[in-house]
Amino acid sequence: MQELGDAVQASDLEDAWPFLDSEERLEGFRLLAPHEAERFFTALDAREECALLATFTPTERQLWMRQLEPDDAADVVQAAPAEQRETLLGALDAASRREVAALMAYAEDDAGGLMSPRYVRLRPEMTVDEAIAYLRRAARERVETIYYIYVLDAENRLLGVASFRELFAAPSDKLVRDIMRTRVITVRDDLDQEEVANVIAENDLMAVPVVNAQGQLQGIVTIDDVVDVVREEATEDIQKIGGSAALDLPYLETSVLELVRKRAVWLTVLFIGQFLTTAAMGFFEDELARAIVLSLFIPLVISSGGNAGSQASTLVIRAMAMEEVRLRDWWRVLRREVVIGLLLGLALGAIGLARVVLLPGSQQAFGDEFVLIGVTVSLSLVWIVMWGATAGAMLPFALRRFGFDPASASAPFVATLVDVTGLVIYFSVATFVLSGTLL
Amino acid sequence: MQELGDAVQASDLEDAWPFLDSEERLEGFRLLAPHEAERFFTALDAREECALLATFTPTERQLWMRQLEPDDAADVVQAAPAEQRETLLGALDAASRREVAALMAYAEDDAGGLMSPRYVRLRPEMTVDEAIAYLRRAARERVETIYYIYVLDAENRLLGVASFRELFAAPSDKLVRDIMRTRVITVRDDLDQEEVANVIAENDLMAVPVVNAQGQLQGIVTIDDVVDVVREEATEDIQKIGGSAALDLPYLETSVLELVRKRAVWLTVLFIGQFLTTAAMGFFEDELARAIVLSLFIPLVISSGGNAGSQASTLVIRAMAMEEVRLRDWWRVLRREVVIGLLLGLALGAIGLARVVLLPGSQQAFGDEFVLIGVTVSLSLVWIVMWGATAGAMLPFALRRFGFDPASASAPFVATLVDVTGLVIYFSVATFVLSGTLL
Repeated sequence: MQELGDAVQASDLEDAWPFLDSEERLEGFRLLAPHEAERFFTALDAREECALLATFTPTERQLWMRQLEPDDAADVVQAAPAEQRETLLGALDAASRREVAALMAYAEDDAGGLMSPRYVRLRPEMTVDEAIAYLRRAARERVETIYYIYVLDAENRLLGVASFRELFAAPSDKLVRDIMRTRVITVRDDLDQEEVANVIAENDLMAVPVVNAQGQLQGIVTIDDVVDVVREEATEDIQKIGGSAALDLPYLETSVLELVRKRAVWLTVLFIGQFLTTAAMGFFEDELARAIVLSLFIPLVISSGGNAGSQASTLVIRAMAMEEVRLRDWWRVLRREVVIGLLLGLALGAIGLARVVLLPGSQQAFGDEFVLIGVTVSLSLVWIVMWGATAGAMLPFALRRFGFDPASASAPFVATLVDVTGLVIYFSVATFVLSGTLL
Repeated sequence: MQELGDAVQASDLEDAWPFLDSEERLEGFRLLAPHEAERFFTALDAREECALLATFTPTERQLWMRQLEPDDAADVVQAAPAEQRETLLGALDAASRREVAALMAYAEDDAGGLMSPRYVRLRPEMTVDEAIAYLRRAARERVETIYYIYVLDAENRLLGVASFRELFAAPSDKLVRDIMRTRVITVRDDLDQEEVANVIAENDLMAVPVVNAQGQLQGIVTIDDVVDVVREEATEDIQKIGGSAALDLPYLETSVLELVRKRAVWLTVLFIGQFLTTAAMGFFEDELARAIVLSLFIPLVISSGGNAGSQASTLVIRAMAMEEVRLRDWWRVLRREVVIGLLLGLALGAIGLARVVLLPGSQQAFGDEFVLIGVTVSLSLVWIVMWGATAGAMLPFALRRFGFDPASASAPFVATLVDVTGLVIYFSVATFVLSGTLL
């Protein structure tokens, strides 16, 4: 990133920001040139804006609250402690205060919580020239986007849409009605923000209109908000896939205790789940005592199942988030993963067999029955890898089916699940192959 | 998502698309209403557009190639087999062909490969009214965005930028020079697309100008391209974190053999790595033979280290991708993870101790020395979890430092690494605690 001119202060402040206390932040912010300050302030997230606003003088607070778009102002007010909300709302002018209050009625993660009420609306019977003159006035007020223009009837129902470029390029005396498109992609105000992002991304839109159950236009969600949603949702999914709860703040800004709390929950659940492996091993303790050599391959065998499962579950989780795979596709996915798991299992089984049977020193390391041990390891791998891949792929479907987040089928979760069943498969195969010799 | 009007065909075709052969796709596409077809075509990705174009008549190919923005057309040509590229380029008009050829000189993943050369450029000495009249003509040609207007000198160097709204709201007789901002955020044409996305997202821009080493404007990257980049990069990271190579196509469109290939590489590497656990176990076979009870806790103990490591590595990988953590922050992260790992280890150690020592039936299950066994498990957990968390957190730093993708520090990779060391820690602690009794 380069800056033309000498604007180094803002980027310096940005770098230092995480290390400053609230007083130093206020001081640094006040030293910025006016338009640098504006860019810096709007680039902060709602929580940081809120903290900075709390240290401002009333005049500063009024100035900066009024710099915010209504949807961003609503986020700031919602990020503030209850006792500060009135003060923040009070810093807005009356019209914005009403808009912000209306937005706050929506859940933050819905289309309604993401939208801006400041779109450009036209009547169908205006001419192109009248429309442009009207827009030129509207541009002086702070509308969110003039990329699309929405044509409404008297009840605020959406009749059509025109891109700004279409309007701008049309002959002056044409009617808006004649240039607008009547087939408009809209989203309902209670649609989840992740799905709103998918609608915008998949249809290559710059903004999407948000309507209520009666088809009345409530606001618009613009693509710049979607970028943040896509990044946020991907971050949450990645953190869950890694086996911790999603963090609310960036890693370095999250306190150590909060990190421990977010990670301890899943780690403890998985740990308690892993006690089942101890129980399973205890169940086969006699076999182990008779053939201690079997224990040498336990980490190898069960982790291969876990790895195959992690691969399958993360691929399916991501495909679900991108809406490439839907709930009803479970059967197709299952069939594919059985085949894929079998092929991967055969590959690992072959390598395992070669390693145990062909490498010199095997007889010394694994005893006289090393060939049968190799067959046991190899056959177990085929079954365990196939089971890992199918279980890992089906778990996100099961979670979604019962209303949970598919991303909870984290790599460690799948691995733990497959560890327990892997042990049972391994010892069952061992009993079958080795009975009469070692067992 | 709702559609006003009766536009069900396009969405029907979208749903059926993955299941159709190329002839059926062509047939379905030809049945769409003209503006439905336009939306449908531009929403396809470059590879699908390319496949469809190959089935078109020459006239259709010319029509549809010319619908594409130059950056999208360049992607289509690059997605095509070498022998089809000339035909595709030939379908463009001469001016577009030159633009597309220039874009193809850039790597697809750079700012230069992402940018469009069709931005709106103005001279500083124009008045606002002249500028608007000029824009109105330009809007009829197919410029990529008129959200920002770029002011250039005679050598195409960027002097300033104005948002369309600012220009539109300014008094008619003002000069462009007087309303433009001279501090402009730009990116270099060789900047990686992920970093371009970060610049746009963090500065809340709708587009960013791309300049060459001489500061000359080469094109613009608009936010709608960034949405795709952010989704793509997150998908790649998630697939890598899950322990497979990144897929080129959506899961259901990737062939079974391709999936096997993408997953077999890492699975085999991890499998061979896991042979080290067999070696480590073999090294402690005497201890195992004397105290078979030790084997019961192996999956429990080592997987806890792997889980703590997966958490730490995915949190750090994501924080790096979001540019919240940089290479030079490694020491801060290390200090935090030592503390976090210690606290998590103490928690699991306490639960483990309680489970082994306090639960009824422990003496029967784990023998007379069950208290010492509990102490062994518990102490090992403290060390292994702490080691897992720090190793998992440091691995992405090491990978990035040596020029690899941090996301390669996948959950299965970290788990495998920690499994081997975890065994050594477990048996070392066991030797220390149990020597003189069981060992």
